[in-house]
Amino acid sequence: MKDIIITIGRQFGSGGREIGQKISGALNIPFYDDEIIALAAEKSGMSSSVLKTVDEKAGSFLYSLSISTTPFGANASPIYEMPINDKLFLAQSEVIKDLAIKGSCVIVGRCADYVLRAQPHILSVFIRADIEHRINRKRPLNEGLAENKLKELILKTDKKRASYYNYYTSKKWGYAESYNLTIDSGLFGSDRTADIVVSAYKSLSEK
Amino acid sequence: MKDIIITIGRQFGSGGREIGQKISGALNIPFYDDEIIALAAEKSGMSSSVLKTVDEKAGSFLYSLSISTTPFGANASPIYEMPINDKLFLAQSEVIKDLAIKGSCVIVGRCADYVLRAQPHILSVFIRADIEHRINRKRPLNEGLAENKLKELILKTDKKRASYYNYYTSKKWGYAESYNLTIDSGLFGSDRTADIVVSAYKSLSEK
Repeated sequence: MKDIIITIGRQFGSGGREIGQKISGALNIPFYDDEIIALAAEKSGMSSSVLKTVDEKAGSFLYSLSISTTPFGANASPIYEMPINDKLFLAQSEVIKDLAIKGSCVIVGRCADYVLRAQPHILSVFIRADIEHRINRKRPLNEGLAENKLKELILKTDKKRASYYNYYTSKKWGYAESYNLTIDSGLFGSDRTADIVVSAYKSLSEK
Repeated sequence: MKDIIITIGRQFGSGGREIGQKISGALNIPFYDDEIIALAAEKSGMSSSVLKTVDEKAGSFLYSLSISTTPFGANASPIYEMPINDKLFLAQSEVIKDLAIKGSCVIVGRCADYVLRAQPHILSVFIRADIEHRINRKRPLNEGLAENKLKELILKTDKKRASYYNYYTSKKWGYAESYNLTIDSGLFGSDRTADIVVSAYKSLSEK
């Protein structure tokens, strides 16, 4: 049995997080999603609450809150630090690499497929669903929001995820070419989508 | 048990045809690939050998070989027929719809997922693989061809397939969003790729 890291990219509202948890449960391996922010905060000494605001957003215009400047003087000029998004991406990448060394696990988002591209045993998955399914899934959490506003929110979040992925990787978000497996959770439902990934994991692990 | 039509889009050299045949064998359902050209020729009265030259190529510059013109005269002007590519697409679409009515089957290429979009039970699959795997797969058939030329041939054929698909459908070739399932046959190999589709088919059919 080989250790395999399952990475999950996902359209907003496709149930990627829930499906990742089901996979983790079925295979009895750890699951990481937002946990990675806390671990990155711990590793980097940055504030977890500040990091949350830039999580999965592409750099490079939000500069670090702790911009250093030289003391005032004749040649004074600000020394810009690395944008906080880039800092977070690097800190999360380190965390993801540390987690991958420990053995099989499920990691949601954060370009983990790209961060771990040099590793031999990765199963990179992307979860999608038709917009109607995603609206239905997000409806209970957005009771007061009109249908067109909810659709807008979903498509805007996808755009942010795509630009984050396309900025930090050399691949394209949502293209079949970027993943080993992409699944329509709207057609299959969460349980059977998880089943497909679990079977694929087992077939690779026993290979 | 529901009848389900499995449509297979594929990158050139990813083994889509072979995988489709394996799925057809495992499920004991008919398989259609180039057979559709012959059936379209029969249905339309067009020549099968002419149709082969424009198969899976986007219209609209190759006009029908049988362009009609009005007799010479003061107001003579040619009456252009529908481009032959478009004629073939329409004839193949009719054939695909006829086949789908008969029950479960596997159909490779020819925008079958789009042609059958109004049908309730479609499992649309796209097969991809890294370029190295596709070069290795196509190598035996192209012994004399230099590596870079073979790569060029593969990528050019993909471009043609993409423009054919994007021209005749409202979807985008090779995007996860356009399919229910996309699989990396380079990672899984042909047998296990077929297994994944067979399992998915069974779970939908028994739903």
